Amino acid sequence: GETVRATLFPGDGIGPEIAESVKQVFNVAGVPIEWEEHYVGTEVDPRTESFLTWESLESVRRNKVGLKGPMATPIGKGHRSLNLTLRKELGLYANVRPCNSLPGYKTRYDDVNLVTIRENTEGEYSGLEHQVVRGVVESLKIITRQASLRVAEYAFHYAKANGRERVSAIHKANIMRKTDGLFLKCCREVAEKYPEIQYEEVIIDNCCMTLVKNPGLFDVLVMPNLYGDIISDLCAGLIGGLGLTPSCNIGEGGICLAEAVHGSAPDIAGKNLANPTALMLSAVMMLRHLQFNDKADRIHKAILQTIAEGKYRTADLGGKASTSEFTNAVCDHI
Amino acid sequence: GETVRATLFPGDGIGPEIAESVKQVFNVAGVPIEWEEHYVGTEVDPRTESFLTWESLESVRRNKVGLKGPMATPIGKGHRSLNLTLRKELGLYANVRPCNSLPGYKTRYDDVNLVTIRENTEGEYSGLEHQVVRGVVESLKIITRQASLRVAEYAFHYAKANGRERVSAIHKANIMRKTDGLFLKCCREVAEKYPEIQYEEVIIDNCCMTLVKNPGLFDVLVMPNLYGDIISDLCAGLIGGLGLTPSCNIGEGGICLAEAVHGSAPDIAGKNLANPTALMLSAVMMLRHLQFNDKADRIHKAILQTIAEGKYRTADLGGKASTSEFTNAVCDHI
Ligand SMILES: CC(C)[C@H](C(=O)O)[C@@H](O)C(=O)O
Ligand SMILES: CC(C)[C@H](C(=O)O)[C@@H](O)C(=O)O
Repeated sequence: GETVRATLFPGDGIGPEIAESVKQVFNVAGVPIEWEEHYVGTEVDPRTESFLTWESLESVRRNKVGLKGPMATPIGKGHRSLNLTLRKELGLYANVRPCNSLPGYKTRYDDVNLVTIRENTEGEYSGLEHQVVRGVVESLKIITRQASLRVAEYAFHYAKANGRERVSAIHKANIMRKTDGLFLKCCREVAEKYPEIQYEEVIIDNCCMTLVKNPGLFDVLVMPNLYGDIISDLCAGLIGGLGLTPSCNIGEGGICLAEAVHGSAPDIAGKNLANPTALMLSAVMMLRHLQFNDKADRIHKAILQTIAEGKYRTADLGGKASTSEFTNAVCDHI
Repeated sequence: GETVRATLFPGDGIGPEIAESVKQVFNVAGVPIEWEEHYVGTEVDPRTESFLTWESLESVRRNKVGLKGPMATPIGKGHRSLNLTLRKELGLYANVRPCNSLPGYKTRYDDVNLVTIRENTEGEYSGLEHQVVRGVVESLKIITRQASLRVAEYAFHYAKANGRERVSAIHKANIMRKTDGLFLKCCREVAEKYPEIQYEEVIIDNCCMTLVKNPGLFDVLVMPNLYGDIISDLCAGLIGGLGLTPSCNIGEGGICLAEAVHGSAPDIAGKNLANPTALMLSAVMMLRHLQFNDKADRIHKAILQTIAEGKYRTADLGGKASTSEFTNAVCDHI
């Protein structure tokens, strides 16, 4: 097989360490990927209006595939948030997060097996806000037919490709009849084209209540940006938190940018204490996107086995293992 | 003691049955309340633009205290939602929901002891939406200094009066800097006046993740309307659902309208199967508001004992008891 070039953003804080873990695991598994590494810049790049360099964005656009660690947006004015810039500049329209109970890592739930698919570009994230008069402020939530259809198409495509049975569209159209109403209308249109996939609509408050009572009732969830932000973290909580949850972003022109969505944890950075699981599992999503399914399966299984055995567990999961001990254990299982 | 007049909206579906339960319990406990009963009308009242009658709203304004069962908004155009009309016309600015694990009713959580306080009049509930061009729709989220201060004041007042230690303001000001930013600014201003109450700010996605992992970390939560809608139902789910969760609305001029927030369950209406717990517990909140603390304590204890014993449990909680069997059991405990 050929070698594939992929962009790697190790990111800040614990990012470089956990990126090393992924590289080590990929080496041991013999994944034919050549990384193009890009760090966040130390100055605002006027072409991106952020600390992200133009070259790093070009790298993703060219390779169409990448892996990203946590990025802390530097504080101060005159530049854009790194995460939002990536979403905007790369047209990352769908954020996909599979959420599965991990055998051996006990939480209050053992029956979570769902995927959240979040519209990633609009809604309350429009950035359009203004003061009407003193003491009265407005934000604009924007919903478009184009972005709603695009994410709905992706959700149904994903459901079909992954043998999932049902797509639930999450909304608050009883209150936001026009915006969330348009989102639902688009989901219904797409649902018609997938008669083999069940389709239902669930109001967000009821969805959250059901998720905490009985998450096993859900399969694939698709939703506007803010609801996706909330529900994907809620679901991560069900299985143990963001340190265990993979994610990938689907962008214009077939881009796939896999991403650990946890923070950069500056307090433990450089101390060989970080949990690389979320980034490893995200890297597995990237491999599946590239159809390196054998490699993906082997690495995925090794990660799950290491967690299930519970011998090497990082501090965030109540264990004493270092990043490299956990990583070595995963490598041993490959 | 004097008799107090209170408005009663039995509501639709199972509403009248569970309202009967409350009346029975109040009688047995000797609560000196005289009910003014008002039903939802069968025609739109032009003065309220909804099926609520003007007289029923006047009754709450006059009595300043009331109890409300579930109301299903009749489908069709040209009238307003019943719940939203009540909030608007009575200026119900804060929705208060204590959420406590019920001893004897097992869920995945046994350590929930928190209160959500929801701004109830603005935010995404403005009703201001329009189509910009075909396929592009906007909703306006409105945050005002006045409403934010008012609900923040109530939250801190509540925390102090109820011996609570901490108020957490829930927001997404990292994205909605101006609207949620204004909400936070108001919370901070009020927090300054309550040095004895701890104050913290939690981003909504993180809040939901923490709630499902470790709800015991929260005490009083205050938040804008939509986050309150979502989080209050999530919290209800932690302890078993809306059938067990009391709520009351604080309105302009000192109005207190207690309310069961579950649906009207038309499928089981009139069959003596409904669970009256949420309405009973809401009625207890109303009694505390009236400072009938002894009566409130006795009734509250009787409800908790009946649930804890588990002998009489309605179908929604997996039992076989009828509404009247459960109600009689509560009365026996008084
Ligand atoms: C960091 C923040 C801007 C971001 C978001 O709100 O989208 C995060 O919560 C996420 O889910 O990726
Ligand atoms: C019925 C609906 C309009 C209402 C809301 O969204 O506020 C309900 O969910 C609630 O929480 O009282």
